[in-house]
Amino acid sequence: MSTRIRALRAHDVRFPTSDGLHGSDAMNPDPDYSAAVAIVETTDPALTGHGLTFTIGRGNELCVAAIRAYERHLVDRDLDEIEADLGAFWRTLAGDSQLRWLGPEKGVVHLALAAVVNAVWDLLARRVKKPLWKYLVDLEPEAVVRAVDFRHISDVLSREAALELLEAKRDGKGAREAQLLREGYPAYVTSAGWLGYDEPTLRTRCRAAIADGWTHFKIKVGADPEDDVRRCRIVREEIGPTRKLMVDANQVWNVDEAIGHIERLAEFDLWWVEEPTSPDDVLGHARIAKAVHPIRIATGEHCQNRVMIKQLLQAEAVDVLQIDGCRLGGINEVIAAILLAAHFDVPVCPHAGGVGLCEHVQHFSAFDYVCASGSLEDRITEYADHLHEHFVQRIEMRDGHYRLPAAPGLGVEFEAASLAEFAYPDGPVWSARRSAS
Amino acid sequence: MSTRIRALRAHDVRFPTSDGLHGSDAMNPDPDYSAAVAIVETTDPALTGHGLTFTIGRGNELCVAAIRAYERHLVDRDLDEIEADLGAFWRTLAGDSQLRWLGPEKGVVHLALAAVVNAVWDLLARRVKKPLWKYLVDLEPEAVVRAVDFRHISDVLSREAALELLEAKRDGKGAREAQLLREGYPAYVTSAGWLGYDEPTLRTRCRAAIADGWTHFKIKVGADPEDDVRRCRIVREEIGPTRKLMVDANQVWNVDEAIGHIERLAEFDLWWVEEPTSPDDVLGHARIAKAVHPIRIATGEHCQNRVMIKQLLQAEAVDVLQIDGCRLGGINEVIAAILLAAHFDVPVCPHAGGVGLCEHVQHFSAFDYVCASGSLEDRITEYADHLHEHFVQRIEMRDGHYRLPAAPGLGVEFEAASLAEFAYPDGPVWSARRSAS
Repeated sequence: MSTRIRALRAHDVRFPTSDGLHGSDAMNPDPDYSAAVAIVETTDPALTGHGLTFTIGRGNELCVAAIRAYERHLVDRDLDEIEADLGAFWRTLAGDSQLRWLGPEKGVVHLALAAVVNAVWDLLARRVKKPLWKYLVDLEPEAVVRAVDFRHISDVLSREAALELLEAKRDGKGAREAQLLREGYPAYVTSAGWLGYDEPTLRTRCRAAIADGWTHFKIKVGADPEDDVRRCRIVREEIGPTRKLMVDANQVWNVDEAIGHIERLAEFDLWWVEEPTSPDDVLGHARIAKAVHPIRIATGEHCQNRVMIKQLLQAEAVDVLQIDGCRLGGINEVIAAILLAAHFDVPVCPHAGGVGLCEHVQHFSAFDYVCASGSLEDRITEYADHLHEHFVQRIEMRDGHYRLPAAPGLGVEFEAASLAEFAYPDGPVWSARRSAS
Repeated sequence: MSTRIRALRAHDVRFPTSDGLHGSDAMNPDPDYSAAVAIVETTDPALTGHGLTFTIGRGNELCVAAIRAYERHLVDRDLDEIEADLGAFWRTLAGDSQLRWLGPEKGVVHLALAAVVNAVWDLLARRVKKPLWKYLVDLEPEAVVRAVDFRHISDVLSREAALELLEAKRDGKGAREAQLLREGYPAYVTSAGWLGYDEPTLRTRCRAAIADGWTHFKIKVGADPEDDVRRCRIVREEIGPTRKLMVDANQVWNVDEAIGHIERLAEFDLWWVEEPTSPDDVLGHARIAKAVHPIRIATGEHCQNRVMIKQLLQAEAVDVLQIDGCRLGGINEVIAAILLAAHFDVPVCPHAGGVGLCEHVQHFSAFDYVCASGSLEDRITEYADHLHEHFVQRIEMRDGHYRLPAAPGLGVEFEAASLAEFAYPDGPVWSARRSAS
């Protein structure tokens, strides 16, 4: 008997992270890490799919409402039919013309699309009892490209070229998978350098991270140039000359400002500079990248779709492509981004942090290495040590590496207790805060 | 005594336009023209501001909810203080870091921002009893540039350069204003050529439009190449060789497809080709524009912010810039777009149609001509003859020209009866449809 989707439920969960300035940066001084959660129920009571999109507080309710708006495209769909053409499934949702008008393919409707689409991929992987990365790695190249919408990117990467690229990487897949299972996927840590931390906290956090085996460190910059220099100096002192230092400006600079500030920070031997300016500014990033070469420019966490990814790569605007599988329209578009980056031979270093993002990126990076890029050179995936305790499946880090998950699915199912406790606005955590204020 | 904002109300209004295939195109087969309405109440019971953003149905509730999310930034604000620094006001709303995360500066939160921001401009113009275009035209150049956020565009247009540009156009302002009051602003009509219309309807509508004095005609293409040729031939037959014909593909083509299809339609002497591909594809538009020159490429109605406008102009990707003051973040960003276009000497031909958009564009085009571009060459503003009867102030068209409005404000206040009748989901029109189905 076929398994069908029965219902789509949505939840609003928010964590009051702004209390401790965790996650603070030059653009986002007081984030409350939040998730708009999509839960897809099926006719099989034991089979439920979980997806989420990440926000930083206010407006999470908009993503929750947008998740609900996609329900009409899910209910009564047969899982076998969805799986047989994952691209057609994606286009049905992304192509809902009335919802598409609100983007198109960007903003709240696209964030919500990611949650819904990823919940369905979670379902499909759980159904065959594979972790998502393994489900992806085991797909035939034909099925992988079928999942991608090549509309508006085929001028640069056609379906045929994408298929060739995957076929060319068939050799060695088994060895690369075995290597990842043995060694894990290399990660870097962001939690040491949030902008709100004072100098002693910064030093303490650096030392703790070194003790935990981390080799790549990223700190926030962009609020005040003098302070950026001071903080880079502290971190470089702590981590020594051989560990890698990256800085993240979170979009605050103008193009010319960015070039000036990056030149000023060059003495600290930056491995990359992240989000130097508006995430929409392909041409601006291209100018910055050219001006500060060989310092590498990274961006992509706010890049909303494959058309923007295509242009960042075409224009040689990024040296490191950071993708976010909750901002792109879910795994279908993550695959498109990974294939585009492999085509241009630009390393993909997915964006994580927040709540639930680390849980996603381990799957994406594994797929990238085993099936698309075949390389670990200059590749490293973000990690932040926040809020993992709220998920049923726990991430496992060892010596600065993600250990590949073994449990079925995507791994973003919240603990029922966390869903209830941090429910917004009526869960006990938020009710208590309202009473106290 | 100062006038303060007291409350922000939001309404969901939808018109069942999909019944008659009005507004149908290759990307949007069945739009229900809708508005998310922002109404700003003040401590002066006689002074209320009205703004809206346009959507095509499902998801309008998301924009309504997003409007409400901005209320915290409005309540208790003094109108004099807002008016003294309209840029600071805009940045407070656009820069709400938690809401900004959901864009940034795009999608639902930016659509809603437009409604809210425009409602406040409406307030300010009403307070001095001027139509918005006149309020804008009478602002000192210093005040105009103060309203603009130059962040992320100053590499191309600085505040100082924008000020110079406005100062240089000071001469002749009075004469241009008098000319517009006398002659109106030239318009073109879209209503003749919706994709859902059959051949007799197309011919009848063309003849009626010619009889009404229209000289520029735009039709929808992009569903089927053979049909596009057939429909262009019909319209060209009806309008003769001297009237202008534009076609609108509503984003459906890939870059290479667009070039091929446009070359195929070249025999019909196209004045412009609109939205040939993804609105995010700056580099794609640049390639198309170069390939099909001298046929002109128009885009911008889905262009979300000044950073994208900047790049379209930098890359020579557009010959005609269509702006939408409900998709850009309201009048502040419309001014930025108009200044950027004037800097690059590219004509601005604002996007209208839908519900309430024509009401906006007459103000923008008047400001552009009087203060920024100083030219009417190759400039023409969109008009569609739908749904104007629902507004308190009625647009006046004569001989294919917008007559500049004389009533105070922006002119997008809905009739109370229309707000009630078409309220979604519980107004009588929608209740009756649910009962009937």
